[in-house]
Amino acid sequence: MTRPRRRAAPAPISVPELLARKRDGGTLRDGEIESLIRGYTAGNVPDYQMSALAMAIFFRGLGPEETAALTLAMRDSGTVVNMRGVRGPKVDKHSTGGVGDKVSICLAPIVAACGVKVPMVSGRGLGHSGGTLDKLEAIPGFTVTQTVPQFVAQVRKLGCSLIGQTKDIAPADKRLYALRDVTATVESIPLITASILSKKLAEGIDALVLDVKVGNGAFMKTREDAEALARSIVRVGTLAKKRVSALLTSMDEPLGLTIGNALETREALEVLHGGGPEDLVEVTLLLGAEMLRLAKLAKGDGDARRQMKRAIDSGAALRTMKAIVTAQHGDPRVVDDPSRLREARHRVALPSPRAGYVRAMDAKALGLAAVAIGAGRMRTEDVIDPSVGFVLRKKVGDAVKKGEPLVDVHAASKTDAERIRARVFGAIEIGAKRVAPSPLLIKAIRAR
Amino acid sequence: MTRPRRRAAPAPISVPELLARKRDGGTLRDGEIESLIRGYTAGNVPDYQMSALAMAIFFRGLGPEETAALTLAMRDSGTVVNMRGVRGPKVDKHSTGGVGDKVSICLAPIVAACGVKVPMVSGRGLGHSGGTLDKLEAIPGFTVTQTVPQFVAQVRKLGCSLIGQTKDIAPADKRLYALRDVTATVESIPLITASILSKKLAEGIDALVLDVKVGNGAFMKTREDAEALARSIVRVGTLAKKRVSALLTSMDEPLGLTIGNALETREALEVLHGGGPEDLVEVTLLLGAEMLRLAKLAKGDGDARRQMKRAIDSGAALRTMKAIVTAQHGDPRVVDDPSRLREARHRVALPSPRAGYVRAMDAKALGLAAVAIGAGRMRTEDVIDPSVGFVLRKKVGDAVKKGEPLVDVHAASKTDAERIRARVFGAIEIGAKRVAPSPLLIKAIRAR
Repeated sequence: MTRPRRRAAPAPISVPELLARKRDGGTLRDGEIESLIRGYTAGNVPDYQMSALAMAIFFRGLGPEETAALTLAMRDSGTVVNMRGVRGPKVDKHSTGGVGDKVSICLAPIVAACGVKVPMVSGRGLGHSGGTLDKLEAIPGFTVTQTVPQFVAQVRKLGCSLIGQTKDIAPADKRLYALRDVTATVESIPLITASILSKKLAEGIDALVLDVKVGNGAFMKTREDAEALARSIVRVGTLAKKRVSALLTSMDEPLGLTIGNALETREALEVLHGGGPEDLVEVTLLLGAEMLRLAKLAKGDGDARRQMKRAIDSGAALRTMKAIVTAQHGDPRVVDDPSRLREARHRVALPSPRAGYVRAMDAKALGLAAVAIGAGRMRTEDVIDPSVGFVLRKKVGDAVKKGEPLVDVHAASKTDAERIRARVFGAIEIGAKRVAPSPLLIKAIRAR
Repeated sequence: MTRPRRRAAPAPISVPELLARKRDGGTLRDGEIESLIRGYTAGNVPDYQMSALAMAIFFRGLGPEETAALTLAMRDSGTVVNMRGVRGPKVDKHSTGGVGDKVSICLAPIVAACGVKVPMVSGRGLGHSGGTLDKLEAIPGFTVTQTVPQFVAQVRKLGCSLIGQTKDIAPADKRLYALRDVTATVESIPLITASILSKKLAEGIDALVLDVKVGNGAFMKTREDAEALARSIVRVGTLAKKRVSALLTSMDEPLGLTIGNALETREALEVLHGGGPEDLVEVTLLLGAEMLRLAKLAKGDGDARRQMKRAIDSGAALRTMKAIVTAQHGDPRVVDDPSRLREARHRVALPSPRAGYVRAMDAKALGLAAVAIGAGRMRTEDVIDPSVGFVLRKKVGDAVKKGEPLVDVHAASKTDAERIRARVFGAIEIGAKRVAPSPLLIKAIRAR
């Protein structure tokens, strides 16, 4: 009789000792980090020790190996999706979040139409930053909840599924993130790295492209921090044996011309129809080319772009999106005719108070102004109105005449549209001299 | 009709915001710290936020004003003893703890006999370091528990009471200390300052003398840390409008000749009889002189020492001790005849393995060796044996012949005495050249 091989139980750890070691700048071993996260998931390591550890990590950091161990331990705290039955390269994209960032909605079907399998787990909006799930839910009937087998089956069949984080995916991350949120320990690059990667690795992907937004509307406050996060994720993802790249892209002004859920979904669908604003199209193609490169489906940037253009022009990307929407119980007619999306009751054009050039748009302020009229939430329990938001009639670098429409406010009431006017104007700088918009691609960081 | 004046309710605080501010090196305002501690005491601020704050404070520190605010908020979390009905200067002494430190037991009755009121709240031993309460309890019947009115009445009547911390005194400190103990946040000078001072200020004292032990058996690891703690307590105590001094004294070897509860109490009683080892007497007089100085009962060091010598020689200190022991239900005959204290069953003299001079005694190692034979505890729930311990027959600087008794082990069994032999020898360095013992007083730090 053979006995089943069992993994040896991890040696008992003294959490205060590990805390003291990290506090004093020492290194935690893989098994220690694993035990910590196991204990945390099982409820044996209390929140008050994890929050103290998170604060110690805020000050002392984690090395790449420690971050990788934390990432894998958090990944393994729940279900790891088994995608081995899905043929082809599984590649996801993750954005650190910004204002007007609806890229996932057009990017996923485009690259899926090119042969990439895209098991995409997205989030909701909070604060100035929007969320893909909220945007997708602007499509009547669209549901972002699936069981793991449904998720796998749809990726196999359609090449893509667009869902939200289930409670089975990386529960340790979910709990730790909620804890960090109330203990001022969010802003730690190794902890952000582990949080993002643990969820993405649990999707069963082979490769990941990270879109790190840089600028006034971005999560990372400085270019240096954004680059550090990008390097950290690429390095730790590589240690976890995944192909990972990061693109630093500009979030100095909102991406595209729309802010607000239905408006943004409509804009993303326009890209699939071959239209859409130039900056949105360009960021989509930059990230898509990187995904095709990591998927080893394109020979180079030119080849990748040609493939994506063909997927759009041929209608393949649109058909993929229609299939996804149908499979996820959304109204597929919206894909063909985005004007079917619910529109806000009141649409008020805000005329420019002066002539000149748009020199700057405060993306964060515009995001928060949109939240103020119901497009987003300041707290997770807030209810959003998918129809409201802004359409930017001008962007940085554009000339504007006095009285010419600057922004269209889509609001639930006239009062809303009126009371937000000053905040919108306050977020837009108009001057005499033209400035060029920031380049969209700031830097690409790839594994060596 | 006049309405009672009410203190305005503190403005609501965002704990994560305060955490982030401290984390980033900012300053917390008095009202914010007060609200935090109020919220913590009331259960509205959870442990996981306090532990993250403690870790942020470990790295960023607290300024003297912040530390004072924390001290007062923790003091006010429970009962503040009203000593206004007790005439005369109320002065306590606090030691950061060491090995063989039985000073309180002789010091308190000596200075009380000189007219100082000594409301002394002491602690128990943990790890290598002993505790006054355990030593006092070696006196048969002696109880260290009193209600606040009993405590006040005894200080008024006898000039001194020697008790343990009640649950009403600074409960926020008690809870925070237990939290710090399991989150690697004990070693923070401002937090240690607030912990010590909050309890002492709750005793209703006018002045405090701090004995900061320095050396291998001390709580503070380095001379620099010890001095920083001393300066912090003097400064914050002064901000709290108390007269506070700190003496840095040597803990490079055990104080006196005994380690173990009954043995130490006996040695302290010997000081009251006019005897006792030179170093113990000297530290007692140093601290006593400082207490008399802060009490404004002595003109200078010489005057203070004369008063204390008179209290001993006249039997006044002994009578005070006898009255205290009687009031606290202990057997007063022990005070006259310390040999009545329970003795261990086995007494084994360890002969010196070689001739030479005692060059060093590792106080911490000897303290831990004593714990190993039952004299102390490694965990708060361990039970101690008051009778066991060590009597040092030689100390640093003493010559010793080969085979001459070095240490007497007082143990519950022969096995205990035998198995501890190697650890005791390992803690004592004997060499060919004589070294002088460390000076007892390293530095005095007084308010300017």
